[in-house]
Amino acid sequence: MIKPVTITLGLLLSASAANAQTIYPINRAEILSGAQFDFKVEFPDKVDPAKLKVTVNGQDYATAFGQSGTFVEREDGKDQSALTLRGVTLTRPGNVTVEVSDGTRSRTVGWTVYDTGPRKAKNVILFIGDGLSPAHRTAARLLSKGIAEGKSLGKLAIDDMPHMALVATAGSDSIITDSANAASAYATGHKTAVNAMGVYADRTASPLDDPRVETIASLAKRRHGMGIGIVTNTEVEDATPAAMVAHTRRRAAYDEIVEQLFAAKPDVLMGGGAANFLPQAAPGSKRKDDVDYVARFRDAGYSVATTKTELDALNAKSDTRKLLGLFATGNMDGALDRKFLKGGGVKKFPDQPDLTEQVQTALNVLSKNDTGFFLMVESGMIDKYAHLLDMERAVYDTIMLDNAVSLARKWAQARGDDTLILVLADHNHPNSLVGTINDDMSTTPNVPLRERVGTYDKAGFPNYPAPDADGYPSRVDVSRRLAIFSASLPDHYETFRPKLDNPNEPSVKGDAPGTFKINEKYKDVPGAVLRPGNLPAMMGASVHSGEDVILTATGPGSERIHGSMDNTDVFRIMADALGLAAAGR
Amino acid sequence: MIKPVTITLGLLLSASAANAQTIYPINRAEILSGAQFDFKVEFPDKVDPAKLKVTVNGQDYATAFGQSGTFVEREDGKDQSALTLRGVTLTRPGNVTVEVSDGTRSRTVGWTVYDTGPRKAKNVILFIGDGLSPAHRTAARLLSKGIAEGKSLGKLAIDDMPHMALVATAGSDSIITDSANAASAYATGHKTAVNAMGVYADRTASPLDDPRVETIASLAKRRHGMGIGIVTNTEVEDATPAAMVAHTRRRAAYDEIVEQLFAAKPDVLMGGGAANFLPQAAPGSKRKDDVDYVARFRDAGYSVATTKTELDALNAKSDTRKLLGLFATGNMDGALDRKFLKGGGVKKFPDQPDLTEQVQTALNVLSKNDTGFFLMVESGMIDKYAHLLDMERAVYDTIMLDNAVSLARKWAQARGDDTLILVLADHNHPNSLVGTINDDMSTTPNVPLRERVGTYDKAGFPNYPAPDADGYPSRVDVSRRLAIFSASLPDHYETFRPKLDNPNEPSVKGDAPGTFKINEKYKDVPGAVLRPGNLPAMMGASVHSGEDVILTATGPGSERIHGSMDNTDVFRIMADALGLAAAGR
Repeated sequence: MIKPVTITLGLLLSASAANAQTIYPINRAEILSGAQFDFKVEFPDKVDPAKLKVTVNGQDYATAFGQSGTFVEREDGKDQSALTLRGVTLTRPGNVTVEVSDGTRSRTVGWTVYDTGPRKAKNVILFIGDGLSPAHRTAARLLSKGIAEGKSLGKLAIDDMPHMALVATAGSDSIITDSANAASAYATGHKTAVNAMGVYADRTASPLDDPRVETIASLAKRRHGMGIGIVTNTEVEDATPAAMVAHTRRRAAYDEIVEQLFAAKPDVLMGGGAANFLPQAAPGSKRKDDVDYVARFRDAGYSVATTKTELDALNAKSDTRKLLGLFATGNMDGALDRKFLKGGGVKKFPDQPDLTEQVQTALNVLSKNDTGFFLMVESGMIDKYAHLLDMERAVYDTIMLDNAVSLARKWAQARGDDTLILVLADHNHPNSLVGTINDDMSTTPNVPLRERVGTYDKAGFPNYPAPDADGYPSRVDVSRRLAIFSASLPDHYETFRPKLDNPNEPSVKGDAPGTFKINEKYKDVPGAVLRPGNLPAMMGASVHSGEDVILTATGPGSERIHGSMDNTDVFRIMADALGLAAAGR
Repeated sequence: MIKPVTITLGLLLSASAANAQTIYPINRAEILSGAQFDFKVEFPDKVDPAKLKVTVNGQDYATAFGQSGTFVEREDGKDQSALTLRGVTLTRPGNVTVEVSDGTRSRTVGWTVYDTGPRKAKNVILFIGDGLSPAHRTAARLLSKGIAEGKSLGKLAIDDMPHMALVATAGSDSIITDSANAASAYATGHKTAVNAMGVYADRTASPLDDPRVETIASLAKRRHGMGIGIVTNTEVEDATPAAMVAHTRRRAAYDEIVEQLFAAKPDVLMGGGAANFLPQAAPGSKRKDDVDYVARFRDAGYSVATTKTELDALNAKSDTRKLLGLFATGNMDGALDRKFLKGGGVKKFPDQPDLTEQVQTALNVLSKNDTGFFLMVESGMIDKYAHLLDMERAVYDTIMLDNAVSLARKWAQARGDDTLILVLADHNHPNSLVGTINDDMSTTPNVPLRERVGTYDKAGFPNYPAPDADGYPSRVDVSRRLAIFSASLPDHYETFRPKLDNPNEPSVKGDAPGTFKINEKYKDVPGAVLRPGNLPAMMGASVHSGEDVILTATGPGSERIHGSMDNTDVFRIMADALGLAAAGR
């Protein structure tokens, strides 16, 4: 569904009526030469197929696309017709005008088909800090590198890169994206809607029939036989990792996404999320059927690891070429819990690998592929913790991302820099570093804890202990700690202190389905204050924000990165570096 | 005063005692070859000058600096000695070790003296968006360029530049900077403390005796006889413009800053702030003496404009070479008030120029100087409005900044790109674009307005009217407007609506001096809710945040900009582009 475009500067192409046809791909879509996509026209009412006229640059669509497609007179049982063509391609670079008429109404959209240059990069590694925001980045630098008299004592690997750009993140339906929509823009070069990946979100009820666009993973495999790796510390069927290969309008369709992951057969697939791989009878399973996808992957030649120990063993084996790693039923735990606090799921899954270990293994396995590889690495818990207003955990996982990028950069340097490495967020979180929470500012009992929020000169410098070799201070409950606050709040109790037992949980499920209520757990923490939210009451967590995200990059193809870009341009940068256009150059 | 360095990774140089001497410039200072600075040692107690030993790279300091300095046994009447040398220079590039001993205690600091390459740029224009944050930038793009199905319909001039970096903003005393400290880092290449500019903030009571460091304006004039321009829409004696030439530990010392502005005699000086130029008897004056600085500037050969009409006339005169423009007693008004709402000070000062008009005039006047110029342009009200939680006005002044940058870029292009143009913020504000305030979401009476905060897909796209030729929509009170919230709040009433009469004023002065209380003005706005703050109760406004700011640049010398930089590096980039080192190449 096309949402109303409420700001229309120089309307490039016109619809003849407010209630015009919807055409997918949408107006201004940029399409890689030779990439497969589904073409669909949704008519707002029932139309006579005899009167239908669809042209592509003036030529009949069936000739232009080489197939005539499927016309449905009453889609979803309603008086609304649709025409769908699956898996078409356009190969000639240039502007494409698509005109649709049902004899009464007409609609025109314009696309751009683009070529790529010759292949420049053997490999592409796309690092996504899910929800990684400037506050996390600055805080990670403070904690892991140190600062003296205002000057940092070191640089983050994610910052110290030759090329940088701002990336706009809006989706086709909203200025605010979610992770599915955002990752899909990177993976396909097409905008879509909140909750969708690898498809344009059409009007039908089914979340699995939407018009598809091809992913970079599919293109890399299809064009060059490249290896594919997907590494995360969230569930592998969660939005960001899934969007590298999957096609669905509903990111929550975990069972079907696992099915699509299996069909795509990435050479390396690692993260949490075993629950939807296990048959419903298995302990911890969340599947609604009896399929055992772990067994299916094994049968398809995959080595399977469920712990760091097992992963190490597979890493040491020279013949590991296909690897499935599932280290938790749900999300894996972040660095602060795994390494220090032992909260979250660590007691249940005590032997989880670090993201750096996952990445090192992925590089070892994937680099056995002579044709190069595409690897997506997500530090995905940054986002989950930011939603929960758990800033320390978000910052520790930013340090972990930086360690993983550092490792990959060294690996690439040792090979003569044949690898394009990109690091970026998928969307921002409304977090800011407003100073410190400085217990020295007021030790008077009963003084509200807000009086300890040190701003400007009263912020001073935090007093976390010196970091360990991996950049992590051993404690977060220090007397002068970073004050990272969110601009979007659910109703919650603010304690002004890090949560040492388990990740913060500002709200809990309410009594009625789909409702939230304030978590009373923190009510009696000394000094806790009730903060009424500024979001609709049924938002149980902090939300995403719409600012541009920061892209930094190095390696062949990164020289094109500068200025202000759209998130769909990230796909184009990668496609160009790999020479993925039809000519296959 | 050196604040405790609480994160000490690899302490580069050691102090022999916790209570050691303080040395200015501070440890790790980077000093431009030939730039003047004051050298000061503060001893924590009274010392015997006969036992004093101060060496620079092993050589006695008096020999190294060519002067013996002033020793004060009891500084500020206390048992604390001090040694001060004014206006010294170091010319040989390399590492410098300064060792100080009083016979008992000792302290060592290290500096780096750096050279510059040959002059690359004829002119430098430094645009500072005071407090310009990613949310303002993204919102300015949405409003002034438009968006269709998630893709922007244009680029901002501030984004579409070839080079970009992240700039760290911490000061020598805190992770959070103010505008004085921040602008001083750009202007001098040295970090200092909150409220200070052009000096290291020493321990003495006087705000005017602190050890000075030379500004880029002084260097450009002294080395190359370049023209100097300072353009703002705040008071010209406010932190950012003042820091281009002034030296004080106290940014509020407006009378003395005006005196220093007069002494520095920039060729172009424009903004608000007439109050501290006028003798105390004059209407609107805030001076505490009888000096008429407007008259002094006139007597020194300056043409003076107090309105846009007068500015236009001076701009048209071919012999205008020195220009003072003071268009309001305090701050000038932002674009939203001047062009549309007529709130703020517009009724009192109805004929204020736009920042673009100030910049165009400054370029016309300064370019008469054959030796090139340094021009600082501040869009300064972005910060003031962000402090006041007045997001619409902050965004409109971001659009105004973009227009001014666009104008300067076109001007430079027409000249063959002989001008380095930098655009950056001085610090961030904790603002985020969390979605829209969407009146369509709930029209039920008495439903809390927070239920209209549209997030994710419910945010959709805002429905501001199409912008005018300058990029400004004519209305901000539309039914789906941007929801830009702050993470740092004073106690205030949230109305979820733009303020159409005057800029927002969340708090007002309390009954006791230096206190604040909630502004009751908005209490009865329908749907207004009391939001308790998360800052100390005596913070009357939203505060600065410590994230890196974004630097974009074009022109000769900008190719050095990438990755992660310190704010002091911005000075170095400019000094290098102008070849300001001692050799004068």
